Amino acid sequence: MSNIISRGPAPTPLVAALPATVPFVGPENQERARGKLFRARIGANESCFGPAPGVIAAMRDAAPEMWKYCDPDNFDLKTAIGQHLGMDADNVVIGEGIDGLLNLIVRIYTMQGDVVVTSLGAYPTFNFHVAGFGARLVSVPYHDDRESLDGLLDAARRENAKLVYLSNPDNPMGTWWEAAEIERFAAALPEQTMLALDEAYGETGPANALPISTWMRPNVVRFRTFSKAYGLAGLRCGYAFGPADVIAQFEKVRNHYGVNKMAQVAGQAAIADQTYLAGAVGKIAAAREKIAAIGRDNGLKPIPSATNFVTMDCGADGAFALKVLQGLLARDVFVRKPMAPGLDRCIRVSAGLPYELDIFADELPRALAVART
Amino acid sequence: MSNIISRGPAPTPLVAALPATVPFVGPENQERARGKLFRARIGANESCFGPAPGVIAAMRDAAPEMWKYCDPDNFDLKTAIGQHLGMDADNVVIGEGIDGLLNLIVRIYTMQGDVVVTSLGAYPTFNFHVAGFGARLVSVPYHDDRESLDGLLDAARRENAKLVYLSNPDNPMGTWWEAAEIERFAAALPEQTMLALDEAYGETGPANALPISTWMRPNVVRFRTFSKAYGLAGLRCGYAFGPADVIAQFEKVRNHYGVNKMAQVAGQAAIADQTYLAGAVGKIAAAREKIAAIGRDNGLKPIPSATNFVTMDCGADGAFALKVLQGLLARDVFVRKPMAPGLDRCIRVSAGLPYELDIFADELPRALAVART
Repeated sequence: MSNIISRGPAPTPLVAALPATVPFVGPENQERARGKLFRARIGANESCFGPAPGVIAAMRDAAPEMWKYCDPDNFDLKTAIGQHLGMDADNVVIGEGIDGLLNLIVRIYTMQGDVVVTSLGAYPTFNFHVAGFGARLVSVPYHDDRESLDGLLDAARRENAKLVYLSNPDNPMGTWWEAAEIERFAAALPEQTMLALDEAYGETGPANALPISTWMRPNVVRFRTFSKAYGLAGLRCGYAFGPADVIAQFEKVRNHYGVNKMAQVAGQAAIADQTYLAGAVGKIAAAREKIAAIGRDNGLKPIPSATNFVTMDCGADGAFALKVLQGLLARDVFVRKPMAPGLDRCIRVSAGLPYELDIFADELPRALAVART
Repeated sequence: MSNIISRGPAPTPLVAALPATVPFVGPENQERARGKLFRARIGANESCFGPAPGVIAAMRDAAPEMWKYCDPDNFDLKTAIGQHLGMDADNVVIGEGIDGLLNLIVRIYTMQGDVVVTSLGAYPTFNFHVAGFGARLVSVPYHDDRESLDGLLDAARRENAKLVYLSNPDNPMGTWWEAAEIERFAAALPEQTMLALDEAYGETGPANALPISTWMRPNVVRFRTFSKAYGLAGLRCGYAFGPADVIAQFEKVRNHYGVNKMAQVAGQAAIADQTYLAGAVGKIAAAREKIAAIGRDNGLKPIPSATNFVTMDCGADGAFALKVLQGLLARDVFVRKPMAPGLDRCIRVSAGLPYELDIFADELPRALAVART
């Protein structure tokens, strides 16, 4: 692809100036480039444990109904989520994954040139949307492998930020802040700053990492998803919740028919089975333990994780960790790694099935041996 | 919902000024308000004939795989569509229905205050996106129940439009222009004007209503969907095609994980079964004939249709047609009607199953009798 429009009507200057290639390389893309499949898919923070059997059954039952448009109000799903969280349906908005909702919050709260604050090395899709709407991203380094609440607060104040992004628990490091710290952070933000609080990994962390679901502030929108612990990454169904007058802003600009009927059906079935969810969270915790043990056996330092992955310090610099990553990929083990300075000494391994973690255990020492040569 | 933000960070002035309620009333919403289901669902231009059996089987088979993220490149689906259309995959972009792609084309080509031209009474979702990005909509009346190519051209020239919307075949009237007229129109547009050519009903019209699929111009993006003849409205999967350097603009701003894996799987299975599609198109044509006959039997004037619905002149003004619509709704028959001046004398009835059209045939004379009192 070329960045130059050779002919025809011109895009807006903002869009014309955006890079023509974007860094969203999925494992399928890598598999096409390699010409072979991965043996272990433990890089995308999916849940290999999948959704509940009842969710799969609900999808199969609904397949013949897909000729009907989805309900643009997402009424049944919003109601179910609201009941689960202890709030009204109009405190909830459904989107095409958290990604789709992050697009909207950037659009709602920022104009070209406005400042948005995030952590250096945090979620790249959020940064993509910030660039896409022409806002100016200010990035704050992590501190001790956690997003720096003090640093984010300072930047928000100094830059008169319109929006701050914080993920808790954090991706890509797996670390977290306790609820009281999050609440203090939100209360200390400048009056004009909205906080996008990404709780994609909310279900897999310790209970005290999350403010209670009914904790609401006029300057906070919280984001959750069916992609992680609920095991439905492929269906692209996330939700945001907050004060009704804040959530109402999303209704003004969202693609009302954007979340499809299969996602609506599956999301409802998923939220109804909290017993299955608890079991999946237990399996994820066990897989984290196993990944950490494999890492320690090989001299890596696993960082305590509240998510469905474990990020591990390879004990040297970013170039070394990159070699470890490349060694694993070459051995058909799909993992990823943080790329920001300071974080880039690590690799990141998602909870996998026992056979996948066995493959990882087999291949990690080989990848490390090659990286050390 | 209130249009006033009582507290918290302010949305952008553009978003703050948008209406808090948006006119996307689905039949489910009406059913909730009525407290009972419709007996005939023939108002949303869905395909009651559904997708091919192989598509349903593919969805069922794929259900356990939904824990994996979708391929953000939509590679397999783009390739299949490209092969079907006779072009490369990079001439194609997939979106969350045509709606999602219309959002993007407005965003790519217009800034606040830029002029966008459409027909008065054409697709309201397009107008929603135009308002959402702060562009100024200029609407041109239909002429003889067709979108006025001369009128759209005049407005584009006069207003220095950045974008023109044209649906062919047209919704809500069902009328169409022949390919040669579309091609002349595109060639006559001002240099800076992009044409969004919505061909959602492309499969159900006469062959000469569509330029050949490989007809491409630097100022035209064409839109098609799996929602209509393919019978997959609930999955929200549409596509746009055009010159690769135009399509590349969509890659810069789209939500790369927005189209879910079920939609990708079903879209591929659907496009592979053109025999089923031909059969569905035949059933749609037969249903159109039956709807028109029912209308004529009751003194209505059906407008020839290239779509999966028939729009019928009720023979009086908009107030009368509205009474007919309300009478049908009260009798549990879900239909819709155009609302723009001149078009509003009509009701619009989608292709339905034989039993649904029997219900329509039973209830139309009663609704007309009440409307005439």
